[in-house]
Amino acid sequence: MSVSFHIDASIGGARKGRLVTPHAELQTPVFMPVGTVASVKAVPQDTLEELGAQIILGNTYHLYLRPGVEIVRRMGGLHGFMSWPRAILTDSGGFQVFSLSQLRKVNEEGVTFRSHLDGSSHVFTPESAMAAQIALGADIVMAFDECTEYPADRERMRASMEMTARWAARSKKYFEEHQWDVPWSHVSDLEFQVSSGTAPRNPRPEARNRTAERRSAQPPGAAVPRNPESTQSLFGIVQGGMDRELRRESAERTVAIGFPGYAIGGLSVGEPRELTREIVESTLEHLPKDQPRYLMGVGTPEEIVEYAGLGIDMMDCVLPTRAARHGLLFTSEGKISIKQARHAQDSGPPDPKCRCRVCQRYSRAYLRHLYASNEVLAQVLNTIHNLAFYLDTMQRVRHSISLGEKTRFLAEVWSQPKA
Amino acid sequence: MSVSFHIDASIGGARKGRLVTPHAELQTPVFMPVGTVASVKAVPQDTLEELGAQIILGNTYHLYLRPGVEIVRRMGGLHGFMSWPRAILTDSGGFQVFSLSQLRKVNEEGVTFRSHLDGSSHVFTPESAMAAQIALGADIVMAFDECTEYPADRERMRASMEMTARWAARSKKYFEEHQWDVPWSHVSDLEFQVSSGTAPRNPRPEARNRTAERRSAQPPGAAVPRNPESTQSLFGIVQGGMDRELRRESAERTVAIGFPGYAIGGLSVGEPRELTREIVESTLEHLPKDQPRYLMGVGTPEEIVEYAGLGIDMMDCVLPTRAARHGLLFTSEGKISIKQARHAQDSGPPDPKCRCRVCQRYSRAYLRHLYASNEVLAQVLNTIHNLAFYLDTMQRVRHSISLGEKTRFLAEVWSQPKA
Repeated sequence: MSVSFHIDASIGGARKGRLVTPHAELQTPVFMPVGTVASVKAVPQDTLEELGAQIILGNTYHLYLRPGVEIVRRMGGLHGFMSWPRAILTDSGGFQVFSLSQLRKVNEEGVTFRSHLDGSSHVFTPESAMAAQIALGADIVMAFDECTEYPADRERMRASMEMTARWAARSKKYFEEHQWDVPWSHVSDLEFQVSSGTAPRNPRPEARNRTAERRSAQPPGAAVPRNPESTQSLFGIVQGGMDRELRRESAERTVAIGFPGYAIGGLSVGEPRELTREIVESTLEHLPKDQPRYLMGVGTPEEIVEYAGLGIDMMDCVLPTRAARHGLLFTSEGKISIKQARHAQDSGPPDPKCRCRVCQRYSRAYLRHLYASNEVLAQVLNTIHNLAFYLDTMQRVRHSISLGEKTRFLAEVWSQPKA
Repeated sequence: MSVSFHIDASIGGARKGRLVTPHAELQTPVFMPVGTVASVKAVPQDTLEELGAQIILGNTYHLYLRPGVEIVRRMGGLHGFMSWPRAILTDSGGFQVFSLSQLRKVNEEGVTFRSHLDGSSHVFTPESAMAAQIALGADIVMAFDECTEYPADRERMRASMEMTARWAARSKKYFEEHQWDVPWSHVSDLEFQVSSGTAPRNPRPEARNRTAERRSAQPPGAAVPRNPESTQSLFGIVQGGMDRELRRESAERTVAIGFPGYAIGGLSVGEPRELTREIVESTLEHLPKDQPRYLMGVGTPEEIVEYAGLGIDMMDCVLPTRAARHGLLFTSEGKISIKQARHAQDSGPPDPKCRCRVCQRYSRAYLRHLYASNEVLAQVLNTIHNLAFYLDTMQRVRHSISLGEKTRFLAEVWSQPKA
């Protein structure tokens, strides 16, 4: 097994745990900053480390188009390419194909789409999406799914959910056959593992040659996994639209295929937040309690606390980084728009309760000036603060769960300002 | 005296020294990164500190237009506003008025100009430019001068040089009358200094009230000067176009007015580099050897080494920061354009001899990808490297001078790659 999950404490549905991946042991519930094209926008990797980011997310669709997975593979995968030693998760490309690309055509085989960059034509199938993610080399990769649009009728939701289930089986089959091709796997050139039985049954000579070639091409600081015998893990994705019954069926079919972790996809696509919560809550009932559960693409600070309270272990969202670039800061006093003139002479920090390097050093007046002057540093500093706020929020959630104090945990939940 | 200058070693005209300013003791020759509107574009202040930036430059023209000098003054001057504890120098606004603003009208009184931001009309006089710089509160401020255009005939160069000389006298007069109004001066509210004779002769009650008001408005981390009895210093500027005789006359007239340091302005305005060097060399002969000499707005890495070799102590230039944002990196192997496809699979560092955090962590392939993808992080990392290259270059120059090895210094000069 290349990931293992341990639950150390729980309150109601919420749990505090450890997800051990090849490159890092994650404290859960964990928030994963989004690093679309191998960069969490505007933030250097050493700053991400200081902020305590344990795992970041890369978007397969974007990376496939630019710089291309082959270049990343030759640099040792995303870890080597972007010099990030901790954990990485890649999505399957499915969501971006549906939200960003033009002229997509879906059939049983996969999706034909045109690049949003240059209009060129491409195909993603469960197999090619797996191949791309193996080349990118994230610790955790996701099955290729169809993100059902919202709203959709029940017929459509069922058909889409059933195709996602068939694609999940194909994803798993391809992944199991090729997972040891991951750029940082040492299995194919460590002979002893063959005899000890930990290596794949058929370590192919060409894989060994590729490993040697990759080694020489990798930057000196390329990250190495903690355990050289480890490789990637593939998580399944539950779809089913906004129908609780279809969600149950999707969960059961995905669990029947069998994955070391499960994601809930197809939410935060325009539906009301109460509906999101209802679907999350009902879907969780049908997922194994002893495996990690990942809610994709959510949410505000108060929402991530709420979902952690329901028993979600992993979340990602572009909100803290994207909002930062638009001058929106999340603070203990609520969301503030730093561009407003009322901050022009405010010598106080963005968030008086925040201990991040931005709040320790700069005033709202200065951040407002940087934003109004269109300075690049505005994007850098705003993003650092928002990520600190999200990561600290999740840290407090973990602390509350470990104390085992339900009242305290609820206080955490409800002391969050309403966005 | 609020600055003092000490020469510790020299080779020929080149000297290694220490320039003591209220906020920092600078090792000279020193390169000053340009922080146009209170930000060295794309670089957080703590990173600038790690890079070893001893002093940065602010542009009075830009800061006057946005955010406005009054806001900066209330935040404790630029040091408090941008949270920069080391030294700052501001230019007088003269150069930007001539290069950026529209519809300028120059007469003996000063310059009327329209903002390049919104077309609004403004006037800079020697007095108002000093008032602005006192409010901004840099350690070193510059006399208001006219930057003579290139090419210009001798008549024009003489008239311009003479007006700069008259403006220098007016700048000095206003500065001496108001220099204790600097936002971080403690003189006006430290009673003992009145009796000890270090305070200005007439500490006015209103200045004292303003100081108290400023104190309460300043961010907690606002920088304080090392010596509470210190204030700003005003440097004079030599003009005179490309005429050695006019340069001599300008130098003599500026020295006769009397300043604690002298700048050479009006160069790097389009003239050939040999002419720049000739004017610098001949002007230096007429400047006091025991005072700091500042060459404004130059240059490439090889040029800053060359000018330091001639005896220049201070330099500033937008080249490292601006070039970085256009994907041009200065390296020990020469200038490279990171956007070129040949770097797409290069796992080596930008500069194999550089010890900056960018070269220690990232590959050319990664930087090329960030630039091609228009990622903000490209601007951040490219700028950090280029500043490291400039600051390290100057560090090597100082080391060579302190060793007293002429051959070694020349080797430094000529080992610089030709840009």
